[in-house]
Amino acid sequence: MNFNEKYNGYLNEFNEILNEFCSGLDCSPQILADSMRYSLLSGGKRIRPVLMFAVGDLLGVRTDKLKNFALALELIHTYSLIHDDLPEMDDDDFRRGKPSNHRVFGTGNAVLAGDGLLNTAYSILIKECRKGAEYVSAAEFICDYAGVYGMIGGQSADLLHEGDGNYSEETLNFIYENKTAKLLTTAVVVPDIIGGGKYFSELKTFGSDLGYLFQLTDDILDVEGNFHNLGKSTGKDKKAGKYTAVSLYGLDACKLRADVCAERCGTIIEGINGDGEFLINLVNYVRNRKN
Amino acid sequence: MNFNEKYNGYLNEFNEILNEFCSGLDCSPQILADSMRYSLLSGGKRIRPVLMFAVGDLLGVRTDKLKNFALALELIHTYSLIHDDLPEMDDDDFRRGKPSNHRVFGTGNAVLAGDGLLNTAYSILIKECRKGAEYVSAAEFICDYAGVYGMIGGQSADLLHEGDGNYSEETLNFIYENKTAKLLTTAVVVPDIIGGGKYFSELKTFGSDLGYLFQLTDDILDVEGNFHNLGKSTGKDKKAGKYTAVSLYGLDACKLRADVCAERCGTIIEGINGDGEFLINLVNYVRNRKN
Repeated sequence: MNFNEKYNGYLNEFNEILNEFCSGLDCSPQILADSMRYSLLSGGKRIRPVLMFAVGDLLGVRTDKLKNFALALELIHTYSLIHDDLPEMDDDDFRRGKPSNHRVFGTGNAVLAGDGLLNTAYSILIKECRKGAEYVSAAEFICDYAGVYGMIGGQSADLLHEGDGNYSEETLNFIYENKTAKLLTTAVVVPDIIGGGKYFSELKTFGSDLGYLFQLTDDILDVEGNFHNLGKSTGKDKKAGKYTAVSLYGLDACKLRADVCAERCGTIIEGINGDGEFLINLVNYVRNRKN
Repeated sequence: MNFNEKYNGYLNEFNEILNEFCSGLDCSPQILADSMRYSLLSGGKRIRPVLMFAVGDLLGVRTDKLKNFALALELIHTYSLIHDDLPEMDDDDFRRGKPSNHRVFGTGNAVLAGDGLLNTAYSILIKECRKGAEYVSAAEFICDYAGVYGMIGGQSADLLHEGDGNYSEETLNFIYENKTAKLLTTAVVVPDIIGGGKYFSELKTFGSDLGYLFQLTDDILDVEGNFHNLGKSTGKDKKAGKYTAVSLYGLDACKLRADVCAERCGTIIEGINGDGEFLINLVNYVRNRKN
């Protein structure tokens, strides 16, 4: 099986889980369920679930033990996008090529759709806690990394420094680590926690590097990409006076950093006993992505 | 001990827990921690924690088994107020006599403060799940009642029907039950779940009635109260063309309904073996409150 086939295999597996969840969602009023479904089903690469299933395969942890964690993670990721796109946050009108949630449902409903997704993610995670101590640990890890010492801290720092075109490298790293890398890290660490925690620190480092890589390529694409491929506006960072890795290091140095990150990720996977080919290809896919 | 002394006893006990939590909150950036603390520490009656501790006393469930649930519940309640006050939701400039969160920190930060409080509540609840199956059940109950089939559903319906001055009694009941009663219900049901679940259905009904009572007195106070006592604007419902129990039934019939609710609550408490005096007084306090 080549990389794309395998990616699509994981993707289809996850989309089935997601579709089942979305069909079962019948809360009132209708607009609440509709607005949650709208953002959940607006495509996306599903990189977190794919990563989780792939690391599970590498470590011999079955997908059925991970599927609810993958679902919860995608719900958390989606809520964060909805709130991030709000007019008083990043103010994005498009997401994945479609009008963002608040453009379709209004800001009030978008706030509630996000709240609803976050709360439902925890409803799923708390149910997992019945299955044993390692499931509680996995839920705890997601919660910590998604929270105020993780992703929300990163979003807050991002908002704080918005438009201030000259903040420190330390601040940039804080934002990238917390806003982007931490949630990606949960995707690769959860299978390990469920599987016994043998590669916990290695996979934490992998997640951190992959998140940084993801953010670097995001910044590169904002300069080099186009709306058609990305499904969102480009050149937006510069227009907004936003400080990015590109404005800090320049485009070429940024690409070099991305290469170093990708290599480090590869080395970690190679150090894990098992078939890591797909994950190494996935890292290269992130490095070379056009959207 | 009279009612006020006992109320303040519970209140002080909870405020100590809350203060300890707030001192320990050291997430970055500073504005995230500050905005969360601002709303958490802006006073309030703490009726949910007080209720929880009082029901615990009635059932013989010790406060130290409940304190983290009470804390999580107050975090959830506070996040819901912050998001509810947002310009595109209820658009309230004041809360408990102080400028609302978004008036002080801006809408973007207020969204994140709310997200942070919600996520932190679940961080607390997931940790509780290590303590046993009944703790998982209690966490699950809170999560369900706070979520899209509970409070968030109520907020969404409230937003949907905002300004539409003539919706059905059924819609009004849906909003009051979900937006207000469900979170109050968790406060009285959680001690019972931890204690073995002997009065589960009675306390669920009690919470539902008390929540309805709370909402009825809210509507009455919006007509009869004043800013000084309430710490928020009055006459706002009518000005906003908001449909309330007062506009549906009239003021006198509303008061009669409140009396019936209070009586039903009292009867339930009397049916529980133990000293229910404080809870019956608490119901009467809600019935006769001026703020």
